[in-house]
Amino acid sequence: MAQVIIVGGVAGGATTAAQLRRLDPEIDITIYEKGPHISYGNCGMPYHVGGEVERRDQLIAATPESFKERDVIVKTRHEVVGVDSDAKTVDVKNLEDGNVFKAPYDHLVLSPGASPRIIPALENVPQAFVLHALHHMDAIKSYIEEHDIDHVVVVGAGYISLEMVENLVQRGIHVTLVHRSKNIYKPLESDMSDFFLEELHRHGVEVKLEAEIEKVEGGTAALSTGEEISAPMIIAGIGINPSTGFLEDSGITLNDSGHICTDDRGRTNKDCVYALGDSIETFYQHVEDRRVNVALAWGAHRLAFVISNQISGNQAVRFEGLLGTNIMRFFNYDIAGLGLSEEELKDYPYFTVDHTQKSKAGYMADSKPIRVRIYAHKKDGRILRASVVGTEGVDKRIDILAAHIRLGGSATDLANIEVAYSPPYSSPKSVLNMVGYKAIEKMNEYR
Amino acid sequence: MAQVIIVGGVAGGATTAAQLRRLDPEIDITIYEKGPHISYGNCGMPYHVGGEVERRDQLIAATPESFKERDVIVKTRHEVVGVDSDAKTVDVKNLEDGNVFKAPYDHLVLSPGASPRIIPALENVPQAFVLHALHHMDAIKSYIEEHDIDHVVVVGAGYISLEMVENLVQRGIHVTLVHRSKNIYKPLESDMSDFFLEELHRHGVEVKLEAEIEKVEGGTAALSTGEEISAPMIIAGIGINPSTGFLEDSGITLNDSGHICTDDRGRTNKDCVYALGDSIETFYQHVEDRRVNVALAWGAHRLAFVISNQISGNQAVRFEGLLGTNIMRFFNYDIAGLGLSEEELKDYPYFTVDHTQKSKAGYMADSKPIRVRIYAHKKDGRILRASVVGTEGVDKRIDILAAHIRLGGSATDLANIEVAYSPPYSSPKSVLNMVGYKAIEKMNEYR
Repeated sequence: MAQVIIVGGVAGGATTAAQLRRLDPEIDITIYEKGPHISYGNCGMPYHVGGEVERRDQLIAATPESFKERDVIVKTRHEVVGVDSDAKTVDVKNLEDGNVFKAPYDHLVLSPGASPRIIPALENVPQAFVLHALHHMDAIKSYIEEHDIDHVVVVGAGYISLEMVENLVQRGIHVTLVHRSKNIYKPLESDMSDFFLEELHRHGVEVKLEAEIEKVEGGTAALSTGEEISAPMIIAGIGINPSTGFLEDSGITLNDSGHICTDDRGRTNKDCVYALGDSIETFYQHVEDRRVNVALAWGAHRLAFVISNQISGNQAVRFEGLLGTNIMRFFNYDIAGLGLSEEELKDYPYFTVDHTQKSKAGYMADSKPIRVRIYAHKKDGRILRASVVGTEGVDKRIDILAAHIRLGGSATDLANIEVAYSPPYSSPKSVLNMVGYKAIEKMNEYR
Repeated sequence: MAQVIIVGGVAGGATTAAQLRRLDPEIDITIYEKGPHISYGNCGMPYHVGGEVERRDQLIAATPESFKERDVIVKTRHEVVGVDSDAKTVDVKNLEDGNVFKAPYDHLVLSPGASPRIIPALENVPQAFVLHALHHMDAIKSYIEEHDIDHVVVVGAGYISLEMVENLVQRGIHVTLVHRSKNIYKPLESDMSDFFLEELHRHGVEVKLEAEIEKVEGGTAALSTGEEISAPMIIAGIGINPSTGFLEDSGITLNDSGHICTDDRGRTNKDCVYALGDSIETFYQHVEDRRVNVALAWGAHRLAFVISNQISGNQAVRFEGLLGTNIMRFFNYDIAGLGLSEEELKDYPYFTVDHTQKSKAGYMADSKPIRVRIYAHKKDGRILRASVVGTEGVDKRIDILAAHIRLGGSATDLANIEVAYSPPYSSPKSVLNMVGYKAIEKMNEYR
């Protein structure tokens, strides 16, 4: 019987195991997870800290016990520390007793995930935390409750930091946000993101921009600006690195940032070795020959399906690549995007269309403005990047854009998108139709 | 200078005039509208009765005066009573003085709209109303206010009737709903529509199914069931007929139901005669050779653009046809659909996928179930029809489906749709992805 080893038991690994078992009732499946938990909804963790997810157990999709019922072996606190892709074995370290053993595989699925970046000044600071795995969430919740915390310093302004700000405020905790740049939330264009400061202000969050924590002593943090601030608890979210150090001598190709290079079947460069999740490099769906690292759950779930099909013998199933469609809630706002980063855009000749329109019929009492910006290739009008911001209907518009772009729809073709119209939902000419009509006018200018 | 005559000044006609003026600053444009008003948001009228649209003037997008500023002549209370497509003239009756005159055209745009069907027993009943044009809305509001109405009988269970029920209830008016069938809201499958009766009951609406009004005497209506009910005011919405009687001798082709047949440029069978809006027959976008009458605003707006381009000389712009994407709000529920009717489906071999899933991550406190059903062709999996029902995120899913189907996406291909995932918006595998995965399993059964 073929042996499948899966490295990592969170979203990518656990989903692959579940899919594979569905496709093949017989194959041997073992998951090695270095942490204490598997298969939890890490995207939901900030909302459990804030209370919107009521019970911790709601975040847990599967346990070693529930996998055992499906004949999947799960070994938590077991870290894969090396791969020999010629001998087709992995070295596994039991973190409980320190013993290392070899395990043979026929198929190896790498889903080791990523690790949060650490701020040097926060190492060994007892009140400093990160939020990346379930045990981090548990530690944060415990610390807040045991120390009756009413003030938290959040460091960084990516989506985890901002979600933590929102959820801490929802809990009634005073928050100070420290961020080294002056721009909040890098995925969104800085000229579209004024509302962040307004929302932070409206919710009583103190904001320290262009500032870094240089030192913590007792309950006080010294900032690079010279200021000292009270810091009874600190939560830092300044990014992640792929957890791929154990692959250094494996011959498996990593890119410059340490992400595992994968193809449209989820394969690495080594036979029978697949990879998915936050630690991989994959490719964009909508532009040719453009590689990307995207740590998003949708792609992990899709690749779990693709890889489990490869292993169970259906190699026709392929991964199309990613648009990188993403969204974040920040208090009343929804902030969404897809496609190339602003940096990556520089390699293409593009024009932009920026349009603001009410999300429902303008005469409805609760109609709210929604802003859409697209970046389209000057040659053929294909959409390279899109950003959508508003307080209502943002998720709808980004998902329509993703469906449209995925099947080759261009900027001008947005005029043809048919929408379900009734006053509570849209105008007869939706905001996306109007972007299309504006794109037609812009492209006519180039011709 | 070319003369353009537009028959009808509501959505289709007014939008065509505005578009055409944008494209051609010189061309002569005259709108003849038989009613007293032009260019109003008729879809918003129920919400003004209910109060969600605060001011009547918010419903009015343009007036004869505002059109005059753009050099468009608008003649209200002028009914076009005949068309001579050989001589290229129309006969226009001034409804104020009864005079009929001939007006020559180079291009004729027909947007006469439709008329509400009348229940014989309600003719000449002073407290009986329909809601189709702005003056109907005015009459309804006046009657409610002047007679201090606290009880209304609504007849019919199409979208206008149901929107009226909701809005009357919102106003605090007691409602009795009389409907001749036992199924509420025909566009939705009867096995998906149980919630209608629950919602009606929850809001205190008395429901009389399989009942018709046979006679009204004073404030009492006699039903076909033998029952007599109090009927201090009656609003009937039992459907519409195209207002195309004036075309009978014109040589312009009408279909069996009196709708004007049009092509992918908005043209009728007669040179330089175009048509759009509720009175036309057009074609489906997603299935071949299937004609359809769809009285929806999106298509009217799109055809206004297509027709104004034809007239101003850009004949490359085409109408792709319709999916018939539609949505209605009914209290907490959103009910959406697209594609063939259940009746039309019978001509195709199809399979269905029916899937219910939470609209956001299942662990979020306010996550709500959403139900999606698709009907896909057994041969190639293309989606012929879709229905979506729920209390949250329905509009998003139907619009994604429309974008997907429009560009040739199949049922199985829904597995590949990338969604913006964060717990407040979706699961990583969205409800539409799951429909796709289920469709893959179903199609594998046929192979």
